[in-house]
Amino acid sequence: MNYSITIGRLAGFTDMLYYLDILGTIAFAASGALTGVRKRMDLLGVVVLGIITATGGGILRDVLMNDLPPFCFKNELYLYLAIGTSLIVFVVPQHFDQQRKLLLILDALGLGTFAVIGTTKAFTYHLGFIGAVIMGVVTATFGGLVRDVLCNDIPLILQREIYATACIVGCTTLCIMRYYSFDQTMALTFSATLIIAIRSAAILRGWQLPRKSV
Amino acid sequence: MNYSITIGRLAGFTDMLYYLDILGTIAFAASGALTGVRKRMDLLGVVVLGIITATGGGILRDVLMNDLPPFCFKNELYLYLAIGTSLIVFVVPQHFDQQRKLLLILDALGLGTFAVIGTTKAFTYHLGFIGAVIMGVVTATFGGLVRDVLCNDIPLILQREIYATACIVGCTTLCIMRYYSFDQTMALTFSATLIIAIRSAAILRGWQLPRKSV
Amino acid sequence: MNYSITIGRLAGFTDMLYYLDILGTIAFAASGALTGVRKRMDLLGVVVLGIITATGGGILRDVLMNDLPPFCFKNELYLYLAIGTSLIVFVVPQHFDQQRKLLLILDALGLGTFAVIGTTKAFTYHLGFIGAVIMGVVTATFGGLVRDVLCNDIPLILQREIYATACIVGCTTLCIMRYYSFDQTMALTFSATLIIAIRSAAILRGWQLPRKSV
Repeated sequence: MNYSITIGRLAGFTDMLYYLDILGTIAFAASGALTGVRKRMDLLGVVVLGIITATGGGILRDVLMNDLPPFCFKNELYLYLAIGTSLIVFVVPQHFDQQRKLLLILDALGLGTFAVIGTTKAFTYHLGFIGAVIMGVVTATFGGLVRDVLCNDIPLILQREIYATACIVGCTTLCIMRYYSFDQTMALTFSATLIIAIRSAAILRGWQLPRKSV
Repeated sequence: MNYSITIGRLAGFTDMLYYLDILGTIAFAASGALTGVRKRMDLLGVVVLGIITATGGGILRDVLMNDLPPFCFKNELYLYLAIGTSLIVFVVPQHFDQQRKLLLILDALGLGTFAVIGTTKAFTYHLGFIGAVIMGVVTATFGGLVRDVLCNDIPLILQREIYATACIVGCTTLCIMRYYSFDQTMALTFSATLIIAIRSAAILRGWQLPRKSV
Repeated sequence: MNYSITIGRLAGFTDMLYYLDILGTIAFAASGALTGVRKRMDLLGVVVLGIITATGGGILRDVLMNDLPPFCFKNELYLYLAIGTSLIVFVVPQHFDQQRKLLLILDALGLGTFAVIGTTKAFTYHLGFIGAVIMGVVTATFGGLVRDVLCNDIPLILQREIYATACIVGCTTLCIMRYYSFDQTMALTFSATLIIAIRSAAILRGWQLPRKSV
């Protein structure tokens, strides 16, 4: 239970982060499962996409930091939640499809939570500045990237919208606040909120990053 | 040689499981190499697809359980077999193409064998119930999934037929039989046979999982 | 800093190999970033493709050999170089596009360097013959393979040109020279040069591997 110990060190803030983590897992699983339904996959494909989208980022983070088996095999609650959510999506996909706004909000919550958890874990494993930011981004976005690769699409995060970029800003902020010895709970709350705020603003205002062509 | 020790614990059953593992490796390599030939890949591409299809599942399992380097780097026989099979497929692809039925049967044998090996290994590493089932499914199906991603197709296992589903049923059965302390040889034989039977029936009768659309 | 120690053992040859490694990282990052610009990805996508192309091979090698976190998280210089190169490519892609020949030469240098580093590291970890060759090929080519998968293309290395094949020839030569106890510096220089020469000849003469169809 190394993972929960890591999180457990964040005294006071622990519970809220844990509940947000759970909420984010459900939101990410629903996003993956819905994509599977839209791609006309069968029941199994929908569940696999739900699991991978919800846990893929954390699994790659744990593989790269050598904290194995990955978090979701140590605490199977994440797997049960991802499977349960995917099954519900498969049975009543139209209900989730009607709640796009709610799903986007939950997805933004998950994005911020996953990112700060990844960066915090990188601190525990003594990674450098860029490493800590990358671990945050990987935790928050790799599941969605694999979802898109499996559906034979160019990953959304490489193409449009402020998504991984919000994570980079938030995780960088977290690194800087840690460097200047800010209180950990405050640093985590501020940087997670920053990610959620940037992501929400990007959705509402249609912000995009620049692109070039040769 | 951790892997062979793990398998070695299954006294009496060891040899048959090992031979089936070898047979499955050859069948999976042939499947990957044939796909490469059909996609008009060059010699190297065909061999790479053969190796990845045959060993990809076991490699991911070993990465997730931190038993590294992966099995096929500890016992290179698997790599030699995958490379040899791929070369033969490249030289005389039409012979393999004519033997589709035989290949499907060997593939089903490999599926059952790989799945129970993965789940058994997960027991050794003290994973939970869902974790053990997932490791079985990963061992048996991940190689084929990477094959399809590299060929720019949506993975077959996400779309149609009872394939990974047969593994889920068999691995779950193995977990339950272990929980009720059945004899290991009997549990392994029964669950592997179950997977092979379900997969064969699915091929013969065209069974499919349900799918939904929004 | 296990990685630099490994390389550090190659007394006398160390510095040149290190500089070639740096040069190769820049060339690979430029190749990834240029692909991203051509695929009309945004700034983030271009940087992500640059990082993955430059470091993906070494990361997979380190995951498979359990030397974690991967090299670029131990020495972040590789990440800074990949990010910096990608940003420059994003700002002035046309300059890089005009220098295709220079980029191909640098890419060939990187290919040879990455391959012999991977195989040498496999020796340190006591892998077998095929394992050492595969680690060389993986280090040199996996980044480009992921780049192509993320861009939704069938990976170039599976389809055309003598690319991974040059690595196989060079890494096999390195294994044989090591077996016959050649001086390490000489073996490394010879096999890296061999890879670069084969790759360059393949570019100039349009060499291709044979392919078959059913």
